[in-house]
Amino acid sequence: MDNKLMLMIPGPTPVPETVLLAMAKHPIGHRSGDFSEIMAEVTENLKWLHQTQNDLLILAASGTGAMEAGIINFLSPGDRVLVGCNGKFGDRWAEVCDAYGLKTEKIIAEWGKPLDPEQFRAALEADTAKTIRAVIITHSETSTGVLNDLVTINRHVKAHGEALIIVDTVTSLGAVNIPTDELELDVVASGSQKGYMIPPGLSFVAVSAKAWQAYATAKLPRFYFDLGKYKKDAAKNTTPFTPAINLIFALQAALQMMKSEGLENIFARHQRLTQATRSAVKAMGLPLLAPDENASFAITAVMPDQVDAEKIRSVMKKRFDIVLAGGQDHLKGKIFRIGHLGFVSDRDILAAIASLEATLQELGYENFALGAGVAAAAKVITNF
Amino acid sequence: MDNKLMLMIPGPTPVPETVLLAMAKHPIGHRSGDFSEIMAEVTENLKWLHQTQNDLLILAASGTGAMEAGIINFLSPGDRVLVGCNGKFGDRWAEVCDAYGLKTEKIIAEWGKPLDPEQFRAALEADTAKTIRAVIITHSETSTGVLNDLVTINRHVKAHGEALIIVDTVTSLGAVNIPTDELELDVVASGSQKGYMIPPGLSFVAVSAKAWQAYATAKLPRFYFDLGKYKKDAAKNTTPFTPAINLIFALQAALQMMKSEGLENIFARHQRLTQATRSAVKAMGLPLLAPDENASFAITAVMPDQVDAEKIRSVMKKRFDIVLAGGQDHLKGKIFRIGHLGFVSDRDILAAIASLEATLQELGYENFALGAGVAAAAKVITNF
Repeated sequence: MDNKLMLMIPGPTPVPETVLLAMAKHPIGHRSGDFSEIMAEVTENLKWLHQTQNDLLILAASGTGAMEAGIINFLSPGDRVLVGCNGKFGDRWAEVCDAYGLKTEKIIAEWGKPLDPEQFRAALEADTAKTIRAVIITHSETSTGVLNDLVTINRHVKAHGEALIIVDTVTSLGAVNIPTDELELDVVASGSQKGYMIPPGLSFVAVSAKAWQAYATAKLPRFYFDLGKYKKDAAKNTTPFTPAINLIFALQAALQMMKSEGLENIFARHQRLTQATRSAVKAMGLPLLAPDENASFAITAVMPDQVDAEKIRSVMKKRFDIVLAGGQDHLKGKIFRIGHLGFVSDRDILAAIASLEATLQELGYENFALGAGVAAAAKVITNF
Repeated sequence: MDNKLMLMIPGPTPVPETVLLAMAKHPIGHRSGDFSEIMAEVTENLKWLHQTQNDLLILAASGTGAMEAGIINFLSPGDRVLVGCNGKFGDRWAEVCDAYGLKTEKIIAEWGKPLDPEQFRAALEADTAKTIRAVIITHSETSTGVLNDLVTINRHVKAHGEALIIVDTVTSLGAVNIPTDELELDVVASGSQKGYMIPPGLSFVAVSAKAWQAYATAKLPRFYFDLGKYKKDAAKNTTPFTPAINLIFALQAALQMMKSEGLENIFARHQRLTQATRSAVKAMGLPLLAPDENASFAITAVMPDQVDAEKIRSVMKKRFDIVLAGGQDHLKGKIFRIGHLGFVSDRDILAAIASLEATLQELGYENFALGAGVAAAAKVITNF
């Protein structure tokens, strides 16, 4: 049915009408006082969302741009870094580090499994010469729906004392509690088309005082992503290069909505949607990729063994206008992923699960009692 | 008056309602067949606009990102480059080159004057060892309203035979005829909030086969702006990183409008608006910064000597809701700039000139017969 598409992918996530209409306003000049007022407001609200007093910088780029900025501003060629790799986006961090000539040491876990904090502890404790300059991890691994144990890994980084902690929170910010200042996170990178509920094209970097100390001596070349320029201009509520004005309008509207809902409610909603989804999937007898204790609040990956994952996605799209994500790289065709990040309600999850049940029925998968998925989801939602 | 703002700055330029509404559509998945169809259409239309069969790559970044991509993909540290500097954006090219450790040789002209092609000829002819790897120029220098002589400078580059020609067409593409293939331009960089008539956040790079040969051996580090990745994915109508989906919707709508108008009509309209503006300014006795023969078709800089430029801008904004640009860097406070780029009509110019006359009157400047500016503009428009 035309115009009925429901995005249940990890990004772009659904965008509220208020945000779409804010984006459709005619642009204003980005060097005007009116625009500076908007920049001041969104920067303050971004700090609220990040739970930080650190600098909060806005880039006209997608999330990978923010990740790259997070590396090249604080490190130098040959610097030793530990990179957590347990999915496509962890691997991407390693690729960025390799592209810039860092000495990249990967800490690897199988796709679908969480990173083992003990391996980080061991490597950091063994580094008595303090040569490790940064630990770089993906908080919510979008490709597998695994939430890595940021708190524990970060504790080992703090025990090391020297290394920076650089975190990709692209699909965790605005879904999971990330108290940036309390955890003393040095670099926190995220992207607009995720928990922020706005279309892609903006990304964000929160930078600690310790990271700025590293900036002072970091030697990788940079220009568009030189965060020092952004910091300097942010103090005047402006940007060094033309900002994506209409996406900033969208950001303003979305952050106002998030403030109205409140951080605790946002986190609780994402936890509820995650539990409802996982409970329903289990009730349908479908295997989950990630373990319960490391479930991403953004995305649930399902690895069906008796029915074709791509056929499920195809029927969900054609019959119910619901877009699910497929697997990436070697998981292509083997998993499907249900997004529940951002502007997603209990009703959306019930609709998705009910549609998934009907889809499985249509594909001849009869390993569950029709209605069991919806019943399980409803139970979580009503008892949460 | 609320909601009456009329942007007559060099960017963002006015955005048509059709484009604003296209942008307000709900995003779709960027890995979908539907989105690939849009990418195929906009890429074909971008090639039409650039008059090229070269690769046309779309970045989620503002124009400076495209400029940086145009440097770091095709050059290596220590490479000798000639950079034309006669305004803020020429200077920015030199800054990018310096940031990446190139051997930057500036060819300088006073702000407001065009680059001298003879200086390029002399440097290129003297380079019998063929050590100059690239000539880098700004076509329309936004900060001063000077259109540099791309055709002549490029002819000297072609006579050299080895050097690449890298051009910032940010405020000339979609205003002035730039036959990329006929001129054999190697790298052509532009940004969305200009002749494209869409908000900022996208930029574009056209890359020649000769530039790709340079890419194969270029050694500067890059990741997000690695154009090789974009080229590979463009062949499949997709992008290596999440594209700015809603801005691509806007681009699709804007390029359809441009195709309807036709290249010749677009160029003629910009020429007409430029001549009308300049003629009117002269009739009001105000000095123009750039000479007639090097007038940018995007922007006209005026350097009033008997009335304060900032006061003019202030009254134009307050009384008539027309936003004019000020001067940048050392021209701040000394000039004002009238944008006539993109979605601007004859009526807009008449309105701006009439408002400017009233503004001058209000500021006590009486060095012209009231009505003379409008009469001069109308004469150009009707006789063009």
